Amino acid sequence: MKLTEILYEDVKEIWDGYLKHPFVSGIGDGSLSLERFRFYMLQDYLYLYDYARVYALGIVKSREPEMMQFFSQLVNDTLNGEMDIHRGYMARLGITPEEVANVKPSIMNTSYTHYMLEVGHNEGILELLVSILSCSWSYQMIGEALNQIPGAADHPFYGDWIKGYVSEEYVACNQSILDTVDRLGEHCSEADIAHLKDIFKTCSRFEAFFWDMAWNMTL
Amino acid sequence: MKLTEILYEDVKEIWDGYLKHPFVSGIGDGSLSLERFRFYMLQDYLYLYDYARVYALGIVKSREPEMMQFFSQLVNDTLNGEMDIHRGYMARLGITPEEVANVKPSIMNTSYTHYMLEVGHNEGILELLVSILSCSWSYQMIGEALNQIPGAADHPFYGDWIKGYVSEEYVACNQSILDTVDRLGEHCSEADIAHLKDIFKTCSRFEAFFWDMAWNMTL
Amino acid sequence: MKLTEILYEDVKEIWDGYLKHPFVSGIGDGSLSLERFRFYMLQDYLYLYDYARVYALGIVKSREPEMMQFFSQLVNDTLNGEMDIHRGYMARLGITPEEVANVKPSIMNTSYTHYMLEVGHNEGILELLVSILSCSWSYQMIGEALNQIPGAADHPFYGDWIKGYVSEEYVACNQSILDTVDRLGEHCSEADIAHLKDIFKTCSRFEAFFWDMAWNMTL
Amino acid sequence: MKLTEILYEDVKEIWDGYLKHPFVSGIGDGSLSLERFRFYMLQDYLYLYDYARVYALGIVKSREPEMMQFFSQLVNDTLNGEMDIHRGYMARLGITPEEVANVKPSIMNTSYTHYMLEVGHNEGILELLVSILSCSWSYQMIGEALNQIPGAADHPFYGDWIKGYVSEEYVACNQSILDTVDRLGEHCSEADIAHLKDIFKTCSRFEAFFWDMAWNMTL
Repeated sequence: MKLTEILYEDVKEIWDGYLKHPFVSGIGDGSLSLERFRFYMLQDYLYLYDYARVYALGIVKSREPEMMQFFSQLVNDTLNGEMDIHRGYMARLGITPEEVANVKPSIMNTSYTHYMLEVGHNEGILELLVSILSCSWSYQMIGEALNQIPGAADHPFYGDWIKGYVSEEYVACNQSILDTVDRLGEHCSEADIAHLKDIFKTCSRFEAFFWDMAWNMTL
Repeated sequence: MKLTEILYEDVKEIWDGYLKHPFVSGIGDGSLSLERFRFYMLQDYLYLYDYARVYALGIVKSREPEMMQFFSQLVNDTLNGEMDIHRGYMARLGITPEEVANVKPSIMNTSYTHYMLEVGHNEGILELLVSILSCSWSYQMIGEALNQIPGAADHPFYGDWIKGYVSEEYVACNQSILDTVDRLGEHCSEADIAHLKDIFKTCSRFEAFFWDMAWNMTL
Repeated sequence: MKLTEILYEDVKEIWDGYLKHPFVSGIGDGSLSLERFRFYMLQDYLYLYDYARVYALGIVKSREPEMMQFFSQLVNDTLNGEMDIHRGYMARLGITPEEVANVKPSIMNTSYTHYMLEVGHNEGILELLVSILSCSWSYQMIGEALNQIPGAADHPFYGDWIKGYVSEEYVACNQSILDTVDRLGEHCSEADIAHLKDIFKTCSRFEAFFWDMAWNMTL
Repeated sequence: MKLTEILYEDVKEIWDGYLKHPFVSGIGDGSLSLERFRFYMLQDYLYLYDYARVYALGIVKSREPEMMQFFSQLVNDTLNGEMDIHRGYMARLGITPEEVANVKPSIMNTSYTHYMLEVGHNEGILELLVSILSCSWSYQMIGEALNQIPGAADHPFYGDWIKGYVSEEYVACNQSILDTVDRLGEHCSEADIAHLKDIFKTCSRFEAFFWDMAWNMTL
């Protein structure tokens, strides 16, 4: 069994919960209030800066040139790709650069990002990649699920969000992460796998808390 | 105004909440259930290992020999001093080494420790010290408050906990941290102070969540 | 006086030595043997991977989004800009990808890069930038000096090397580093400046050793 | 074959050179000038502070409590054990605390320590331990070789140096490092071993340069 399959099996229940979450289903049926989405957008925007930092730690820890290029590409994809979705929404929501500059991360946001950053600082490349996987992979899964709902991807406001996470570029980028995790995971010991499962489950729980935070607009 | 005074002022309200927390007041009047205390002991024990890691990062980041000795002493005080209180309680509670080896940190515990570790990895000595201060300083404040309650420090079970955090050694160790923060803080810019307040408030909020976690026994 | 002026004054003598170095003057008058240049190219190529890692640490340590973009751009400029000069030369020298993959850094190369990486890991943004400055800034100075020699930039083999380090892109990128160092250096204490001078002089000495290593082809 | 045996085999030639080095043989026959020894003492003293920092990184990177205690003990053994030999010699040589505070590490000293620190920051526990092994293990080997020379350990000045590195405490501490390396090395892949050999050889070369630096008193 591939490492990513082992990891997924362990968190399936948590991930199923994302799809039933009112914030996520509210994007799917268009019922989510703009106020909540606005709150989420700003927090997710801050989150992505730290996400890019985790990828940058991947550059530092890589031994092979190809791996450095891989992580360098991910830093760019985050700062200049995924965050462009956010910049588009922030413009539509009338969020000014001043507001962005002054927003502070919620404590749940900080908890999640600093956990990944610490894994990145203190552990190896594989642990680092597994720590970022819950976010990137579950967003694709959510995008694909919402994309099945008739009309959801054509929603005048939330449609772009869904389309972003099922786009060819996003899916290809995600697949490259999954493939790298599986390749690096080939020679893991049982103890290594247990440790990686801990990291993956911890981040999957943080994802669930992040949706709660967004729904409740908790700072 | 000293930096520690500035920091305290900013979190006073949060800290006042610790004293009213049912877990803390339950230690003070002896009403806390052993089940809750047992849960807390194990989590706090895990917490202290990471706390010692943060101090170890202080050794790494120190420029002067005296500072290295200071942090090296704090690593020892934690691993072989404060944790001895825990080892005593674990023996009295019949907690076996196997149980300790198998317990996993709660997600709130992980959030808190990884935040401090990341500050330690990514920032300077002063930020690192400020991140550990909410825990060490507020425990002394709690110890001193509970010690005012007649009979509390003589409680056959919880008395030792209170006595540990008002002991001469603990208070002296704490004072050395406070003095170092004040000394390093003398030349801080306004922006530096704002940043340090963020760190201190974040950790103070984590402390509050830690007491909630202990009371609700939330993994 | 700007910080970069203070730093330069302190190492002027060392930098003057670069221009008189037989390896550097050999590029200028075209007398350098291909064997020596080949050795240098491979070592400098490995060096740049670690150089990009130092910039990646800058992404991790940045507090402001603009700074993150700045360092992210520098990672790219290194991996896909400056290293393209090397890839061009390696093609002309018949260096195969296999040879590149198998070459090991010389001990002087390792000493230099690991010093910068450690500064990047253990210190702040300004120290990190100062550690990379001797290389980027002195290469521009060398390029400009050699570019004054009639015919040097038109040399069929070494001309491209000189042109690379006086190119608009290279000079602009360098200027952005110098400006950032000067801006961050505005509020430095005397002790900070003394420490930054130590870092800058250490790296300037490593640069001198690197030219010696290239000339003597010392592994 | 044990990992430490594999590593030793790879550097045997370099290590044999230590014993023939005029600085080392000068300690053995008592002919080493005090001036050279004085220079070495001060540099080695600075070196040990960074050595303790590498051990502190081991505390940070340890997963198991026993490993944390192990590294914490090594920090103490260095700061308060091995460095006491130095403090004794510095007193006998009339080196004042002011002189110690003002001495700067030589560039070779800095190269060596920053290499180990960077391995400690960027890699795992085993790589970290292997990076410190050349120093600790070769000093024991040197101590044992010099101790065979009739009268060497009784030399009124250099005898204490030899006795320090063959002392029961030093040898036991060293053995615990060797045993840990062998235990952690049990499941290494061929690629891991090749990488560890690189680290060990690099540090062994730095050791040789350190003796040269001491002999030539090169800053």
